[in-house]
Amino acid sequence: MVSKEFSELRLQLITKTKEQLAAAVGFDTLCIQSLAGYDDLIVQLNGLSKRLREWHAYTLPELDHFVKDHEKYTELIATKTREELVGEYVKDTSMGANISEKDYNAIVQFAQHIHSLYAYRHELLSYIESILQEHMPNVATLLGTTLAARLLAGAGSLKRLSRLPSSTVQLLGAEKALFRHLKTGARSPKYGHVYNHQLLQQSPAKIRGKVARALADKTSICAKLDYFGGEFLADKYKKALEDKFPRQ
Amino acid sequence: MVSKEFSELRLQLITKTKEQLAAAVGFDTLCIQSLAGYDDLIVQLNGLSKRLREWHAYTLPELDHFVKDHEKYTELIATKTREELVGEYVKDTSMGANISEKDYNAIVQFAQHIHSLYAYRHELLSYIESILQEHMPNVATLLGTTLAARLLAGAGSLKRLSRLPSSTVQLLGAEKALFRHLKTGARSPKYGHVYNHQLLQQSPAKIRGKVARALADKTSICAKLDYFGGEFLADKYKKALEDKFPRQ
Repeated sequence: MVSKEFSELRLQLITKTKEQLAAAVGFDTLCIQSLAGYDDLIVQLNGLSKRLREWHAYTLPELDHFVKDHEKYTELIATKTREELVGEYVKDTSMGANISEKDYNAIVQFAQHIHSLYAYRHELLSYIESILQEHMPNVATLLGTTLAARLLAGAGSLKRLSRLPSSTVQLLGAEKALFRHLKTGARSPKYGHVYNHQLLQQSPAKIRGKVARALADKTSICAKLDYFGGEFLADKYKKALEDKFPRQ
Repeated sequence: MVSKEFSELRLQLITKTKEQLAAAVGFDTLCIQSLAGYDDLIVQLNGLSKRLREWHAYTLPELDHFVKDHEKYTELIATKTREELVGEYVKDTSMGANISEKDYNAIVQFAQHIHSLYAYRHELLSYIESILQEHMPNVATLLGTTLAARLLAGAGSLKRLSRLPSSTVQLLGAEKALFRHLKTGARSPKYGHVYNHQLLQQSPAKIRGKVARALADKTSICAKLDYFGGEFLADKYKKALEDKFPRQ
């Protein structure tokens, strides 16, 4: 019977397609998703921390002034009692209200949840780091975890990253400025995500464009090494760059 | 010495001011802050859940289709293994990728953190409920926790809520539409936050304005009862409203 053969063929093709779809999910996709989750967390932790500050300030407004770092602030409230905080930071009667234990506990609980999210954020980053170290050790070593992940996300996959010209790698993440440049003739961007690399951060503004170009250059080589399974050379490149552009 | 007396007076005044500042924090402030925290959580849980869906869909795209509720979806991933989910929902080979255990665990961890935030959201709501039941039982009973807290936040304090005309209570939360009406002559809003009350939800659109007016009316009375320490009458008012506007 033709129809039976036909339906068998159909099933085979469906199975084949499912397999191919499943195979299309590489480490790049997972890494990009985790990075997006990580970025979401940062934004939301900021929002929640600000809320915590506002809420807690009713009972201890002084602390807000002494501890500027959100994570530290959250940790303090999550782990210390109000008396300990008064003793350490205020050293006097606080201007805040003496709220009931129940009300203070509600604030502490809020802080504890934010605190555990902060801890989780670090875990997620080490997960991303472990994927990157496994699949693209050269790029990850040269650029560091978050930056490597951001470039990967910008390119879409390691395959594509390894094929991009290094001038494109240099500008990944600066798409808005690039298109503004092309459209209105505004000044062209000199760097995208790579701007956050330590090497650029420590260089004087005058040579940052040059450093970015050199860094993108080495990144391209590293991406090719990683994609085609080459050896591990990133530490040498990193050393060479650091020698060429010493900390000033 | 005059200057000694003067500096003593200064210290006394500072102490006095601190006391007054502390006394200015009533249950209303704490309730408004918790509600704001609660609203923050809802927004952020939505964002994180969407991220989880996108991430998890690479390994099990079918689940996204079967479970529409974010909280349920998160719970499933946080508490069940991938095999259990496939068995329950897909009943066939999944179209998703067979990712490594380490990669899957990263998703599960993400889900577990979101899941515990969902649980916390409910805790926070019961805390708000307990404040409201203690300090404004009439309004809370008539309107329910979130709605009562929203009106309190809209008014700024129970004192102010108890002094607002009921036509204002009816429109709390519809400020944008109200000012649009005043500015451009567009149609005036018929209800603000009270729109979310069950009584309005179950009424046909035609009489909703009327229901909102009656509800705001009773809310005003309840707020006065609560502020001036009157008796508990909210259940009677609620009953009367339900009798007057039966479910249709």
